[in-house]
Amino acid sequence: MASPVTPPRGMRDFLPADKAKRERVLGVIRETYAAHGFDEIETPVMEDFGRLHAGLGGDNEKLAFNVMRRGLDAEALRAAAESDDPDALADLGLRFDLTVPLARFYASHRASLPQVFRSVQIAPVWRAERPQKGRYRQFVQCDIDIIGEAGILAEIELLTATLATLDALGLENCRIRINDRRILLGLLEHFGFEASQNDSVLITIDKLDKVGPEGVVAELREKGSRPEAVEAIERFLAVSPPVLPEGVAQDAVADLARIESALAAAGVDGALVFDPFLVRGMGYYTGTIFEIEHPDFTFSLGGGGRYDGMIGRFLTESVPACGFSIGFERIIDLVADPAAGNVRSVVLVHEKNADPTQLLSLKRQLVADGVRVRLERRTKNLANLLDRVASAGFTEFAVVYPDTIDASTLPIKRLPGTESGEVVIA
Amino acid sequence: MASPVTPPRGMRDFLPADKAKRERVLGVIRETYAAHGFDEIETPVMEDFGRLHAGLGGDNEKLAFNVMRRGLDAEALRAAAESDDPDALADLGLRFDLTVPLARFYASHRASLPQVFRSVQIAPVWRAERPQKGRYRQFVQCDIDIIGEAGILAEIELLTATLATLDALGLENCRIRINDRRILLGLLEHFGFEASQNDSVLITIDKLDKVGPEGVVAELREKGSRPEAVEAIERFLAVSPPVLPEGVAQDAVADLARIESALAAAGVDGALVFDPFLVRGMGYYTGTIFEIEHPDFTFSLGGGGRYDGMIGRFLTESVPACGFSIGFERIIDLVADPAAGNVRSVVLVHEKNADPTQLLSLKRQLVADGVRVRLERRTKNLANLLDRVASAGFTEFAVVYPDTIDASTLPIKRLPGTESGEVVIA
Repeated sequence: MASPVTPPRGMRDFLPADKAKRERVLGVIRETYAAHGFDEIETPVMEDFGRLHAGLGGDNEKLAFNVMRRGLDAEALRAAAESDDPDALADLGLRFDLTVPLARFYASHRASLPQVFRSVQIAPVWRAERPQKGRYRQFVQCDIDIIGEAGILAEIELLTATLATLDALGLENCRIRINDRRILLGLLEHFGFEASQNDSVLITIDKLDKVGPEGVVAELREKGSRPEAVEAIERFLAVSPPVLPEGVAQDAVADLARIESALAAAGVDGALVFDPFLVRGMGYYTGTIFEIEHPDFTFSLGGGGRYDGMIGRFLTESVPACGFSIGFERIIDLVADPAAGNVRSVVLVHEKNADPTQLLSLKRQLVADGVRVRLERRTKNLANLLDRVASAGFTEFAVVYPDTIDASTLPIKRLPGTESGEVVIA
Repeated sequence: MASPVTPPRGMRDFLPADKAKRERVLGVIRETYAAHGFDEIETPVMEDFGRLHAGLGGDNEKLAFNVMRRGLDAEALRAAAESDDPDALADLGLRFDLTVPLARFYASHRASLPQVFRSVQIAPVWRAERPQKGRYRQFVQCDIDIIGEAGILAEIELLTATLATLDALGLENCRIRINDRRILLGLLEHFGFEASQNDSVLITIDKLDKVGPEGVVAELREKGSRPEAVEAIERFLAVSPPVLPEGVAQDAVADLARIESALAAAGVDGALVFDPFLVRGMGYYTGTIFEIEHPDFTFSLGGGGRYDGMIGRFLTESVPACGFSIGFERIIDLVADPAAGNVRSVVLVHEKNADPTQLLSLKRQLVADGVRVRLERRTKNLANLLDRVASAGFTEFAVVYPDTIDASTLPIKRLPGTESGEVVIA
């Protein structure tokens, strides 16, 4: 072999069995979101460099793959090297999330969209992450967003659509941790932290799951936070379940209560867990924030929240928006492959020198009957061949003899291992 | 508006109606190819720079978008500018076709794939084309390929699967022009052209459709081809239908005859048209070549051929391969939107200050009954709203009143214009 033939670092090929499962799972997600009234859109994988680096993407902007301006000669390259202007070399970039493109899309097509726009985006994004287990440089995101709805109806529709999708995928026991940025900020004010330290304090609080209350308190002390504020947070963390002090972020608390009672009234009981110290990393959230948890897994399966300031960034006005994202690459390995339907699938095993006309004719007869058909040249070890096609999703097979003309006379049998009690080898 | 919010030049956003149609058409293509025994695979959108520019992509290599190496400092940029080495700046590139990635994929995963591997790839590619009508810088390709089958069974399966897919999309009258590179080269030798001129002569012959026999003859004279060869080609072109001289490319002629008779025996009559001057641009074809034509359109709807030399380029041995590609971006505007199925779809029109709990409850009752539901806030002009949701694919609507609790008492009506004779506005 001349040189390595693996995909680029941190990126993956998908072989038939994996690709088929991914498409079927995405089909379930698409179908459920469509039933809940969301519309799928698509944007190009690239955006103009300046728009991608407009400050909406947080730390992810630094991970963007940049696409070279075309037609640069040596002189232009030298000039770019001197100028230190990244835009001189790259005029496009691959998207690192689906939110920046959505903001750009909405600004471009607002006039053609409903007043309240419910979008689905299911598409790959790219980040130059340091390769590590479970982190890829190309991965699929599944986002739903509601743009133009300032009230809790947005949260309610996002939560129910997401829970219904998780149910449809067999992840019935998911719960959604919910909080509101206004509660977080209200608490910090109540504890007595300086407002200018909020971002730094939230970064520490975000580690609560990992380092525990003692760790959080220790880190805040290290950071030099006000002692009385650290003591207040220590007292708050000592009580379980947490009790919100009177008067903190009353609007936000009332919104959460209304969201919970609406879900309960609709029969979605106990799926929401209020967590006043849920932070979520992205600084652009302005209201509710969510995170999906499952009792069997320590990591989150997705999340989202309200980000009212962002969609309007490419317009001259503010537009309310709220979104929820399922972590597709995390759930794909957890869920069972959805049934491929009731399509019969038959492998026709033939000799290398079989008559192509005969094979085509048999294949067409079966396909016309709604059967999925694969021709397979006979190999020395027939059992191995049958194993392989069974693991590729086929369930029946027949060996084609030179005199078989009519597909209805084919000796079709169940493939070994595809159904208990019916293991037959020709 | 701060700056243009359109997609990058030559690339497109897809709004809900277009996106839905594209996905449904792709669904039909996927399903038909699966029925014919092809397996879908996926590769990353990027390939290593060197592999992408290994000479397998012909002229398309020049149109590749290159992705910048990360972490270059000013000194590295200056060095790259001096060195004139493109690889110093870009270590990755976006694929410009699906064939180079397939060759790389096959070389990487051969051990896990069947001896004869039938692949489907449905995915976007990128080319920095000069923007013009119908040419995009991001577009979807639909390729099927059979790797490892040297005989005409590959051509037969590709042709029948492609014709079945075109049928399923409602393009029943397609015909496939077929030729063989060996016939082309045999003819040129028979006419007396110098072998060293073959590529140049084929470029001229490829213009036959546009410039006619006189144009071809004139251009060959201009190019200084041997006069007796030009006269021979002139005589050949004067006879319609063309008559192949005895003895030219006998193996290839026999193969075409066997392909045609196999299709005829299977009931696929008259779909193949032998065209001894079909060239197709790509120099990598080694045997049969195909092009889809439809009586209603002057442009081709797709094409393919045998390219035995190419897949093995990333291995140490030669591997037979044959492929067929449907021009998705060309057909998407020609075909009707496949039925979205029998799913009922209802728009619930509500007042701005409606109770979210009530709306959620009604929505969930309908979704549970298998109905697709969209909540829409009532606008001043109800008729406009109903028009819009009808064109978005919904077929029924109901206005929600404050006392409606049970979805079964909703006054659901047909949306105006979605079915003749049933136009009702509340």
